[in-house]
Amino acid sequence: MNPEEEKRATPCSSPVFVHNPHLDVMKDDVLYHFGLGTATHNLPAMFGDVKFVCVGGSPWRMKSFTEYIAAEIRMEDPESEYPNICAGTDRYAMYKVGPVLSVSHGMGIPSIAIMLHELIKLLHHAHCEDVTIVRIGTSGGIGLEPGTVVVTKKSMDATFLPKFEQVILGKTVERNTDLDQCLAEELLQCSKELNQFETVIGNTMCTLDFYEGQARLDGAFCSYTEKDKQDYLKKASEAGICNIEMESSVFAAMCKLSGLRAAVVCVTLLDRLKGDQMNSSHEVLQSYQLRPQILVGNYIKKLLKAKAGRSCNSATV
Amino acid sequence: MNPEEEKRATPCSSPVFVHNPHLDVMKDDVLYHFGLGTATHNLPAMFGDVKFVCVGGSPWRMKSFTEYIAAEIRMEDPESEYPNICAGTDRYAMYKVGPVLSVSHGMGIPSIAIMLHELIKLLHHAHCEDVTIVRIGTSGGIGLEPGTVVVTKKSMDATFLPKFEQVILGKTVERNTDLDQCLAEELLQCSKELNQFETVIGNTMCTLDFYEGQARLDGAFCSYTEKDKQDYLKKASEAGICNIEMESSVFAAMCKLSGLRAAVVCVTLLDRLKGDQMNSSHEVLQSYQLRPQILVGNYIKKLLKAKAGRSCNSATV
Repeated sequence: MNPEEEKRATPCSSPVFVHNPHLDVMKDDVLYHFGLGTATHNLPAMFGDVKFVCVGGSPWRMKSFTEYIAAEIRMEDPESEYPNICAGTDRYAMYKVGPVLSVSHGMGIPSIAIMLHELIKLLHHAHCEDVTIVRIGTSGGIGLEPGTVVVTKKSMDATFLPKFEQVILGKTVERNTDLDQCLAEELLQCSKELNQFETVIGNTMCTLDFYEGQARLDGAFCSYTEKDKQDYLKKASEAGICNIEMESSVFAAMCKLSGLRAAVVCVTLLDRLKGDQMNSSHEVLQSYQLRPQILVGNYIKKLLKAKAGRSCNSATV
Repeated sequence: MNPEEEKRATPCSSPVFVHNPHLDVMKDDVLYHFGLGTATHNLPAMFGDVKFVCVGGSPWRMKSFTEYIAAEIRMEDPESEYPNICAGTDRYAMYKVGPVLSVSHGMGIPSIAIMLHELIKLLHHAHCEDVTIVRIGTSGGIGLEPGTVVVTKKSMDATFLPKFEQVILGKTVERNTDLDQCLAEELLQCSKELNQFETVIGNTMCTLDFYEGQARLDGAFCSYTEKDKQDYLKKASEAGICNIEMESSVFAAMCKLSGLRAAVVCVTLLDRLKGDQMNSSHEVLQSYQLRPQILVGNYIKKLLKAKAGRSCNSATV
């Protein structure tokens, strides 16, 4: 472990911030879309030990990630299934194994934003500290071999600017979409050590739409030509954009505001310069989708091992 | 049945339009987020008889709607469950009973937009005609008794304008959010006949965010006061806005473009002038959520009965 990793792995008591004075005077807080609340659940007891949160669009993928990470960090219980903590609702699914929380967020900025508001409040109510959060997702690549994993440097909007526009009381406020560059580098390093698939660091474009919003030619509506599409993607590429997805900007903005150490790790399912349709076989697409899980799972294992090693060393001093 | 209903119930062979010349030259079309495709599924055989599509955020709600409508139109098969047609993916759930298709769309504009692109292509590939589509959802009310059902007149954005902004190749295009006013009136009339709960026609505000975007005071972040919130909601009310949700604008815009006869029917779960938290009991909230289902179910039953009556009369002439 290098000194930067050592530093990162050392507890430094950084809490999860909310920025809302109204919460202080609320008698209790219903996290409606999780089916949880401060009056009905002992959030510090349930979540106080969380150090890693992994989020992704699909509930199945987040369940499979939990099973994977349980085996990796040897905390699996062969007798038990991992119950969905949000079983009272079908808006999101949530699983926990040891210090790792896994939450689904659906598709698109609004869907992940609702989840993050409630997740940030949950981590705050549970008095969690030093939390790392990673979005593990899928994306369309620009000029990359399908299956390449992209760790996001900057999340950019559809005009290639690194910002997220939040509408508040009908007025647009710009928010910064910086992600943790050390964490991105550590993930890249981890992938090099794993040596199982290609991983790059690059900018990610975050759009509000999958079809017209990403210059696809295969939606129900399309008013532009193949050349228009290629010109647009070429400009994106010139802005350092390696892949396109639909959640990273608000994820980066909200994590930054709440002091969460955050990264976005997405696999590319296709090269958008060569096509728009996802017509690789189900098996190939499934295997690609495992890559962010494998990378982040390995990273978490490495950090937990380092931490255990330090505790052990301290005990023998 | 009044003459307007008679006219509406009469087949007039209105197809479902796509506006995309590129689709004509595609060998096949993968509807990725449904796990369906023209090469792998016989879409005309599976969906050619669809006349009503009901969409809503939650997969559970859309399954329960299918069971409800099956009993209402007496097409239920007590021996069989209704299988999820999109079982190969967990992005959306889809159920069908007779001419009624029921599809979940997740939360927010991007999530419903992906679904609608693929649904419109599905209906087009299946050669469906004369399709009516209704979003049955939940919302926050402004100055209405919780449990009131709102049939949307116009869908408005966060600045109270009746438009939807679609980003195409990085440029913003404005789209019209008109809904079918005759359909809205017919639904209101149907609710009067049912006489089970209050229903109104009013404008609906569609936002990109549930917390700051809807002036809530209970998100992880909030930079405004209770008075700012009340002033904003008062202005919304003055623009004729009765309720707030997160999908109606793109739904209205896309249905209009594709020639689908469309309505938005949402129940209000709380009065936003009095609070932000959803702290009614689970049972009360559940019973409210049934109301759009009951109204739309009844409307479909009425139309199918009228159609059957006409066929019967024709046969005896």
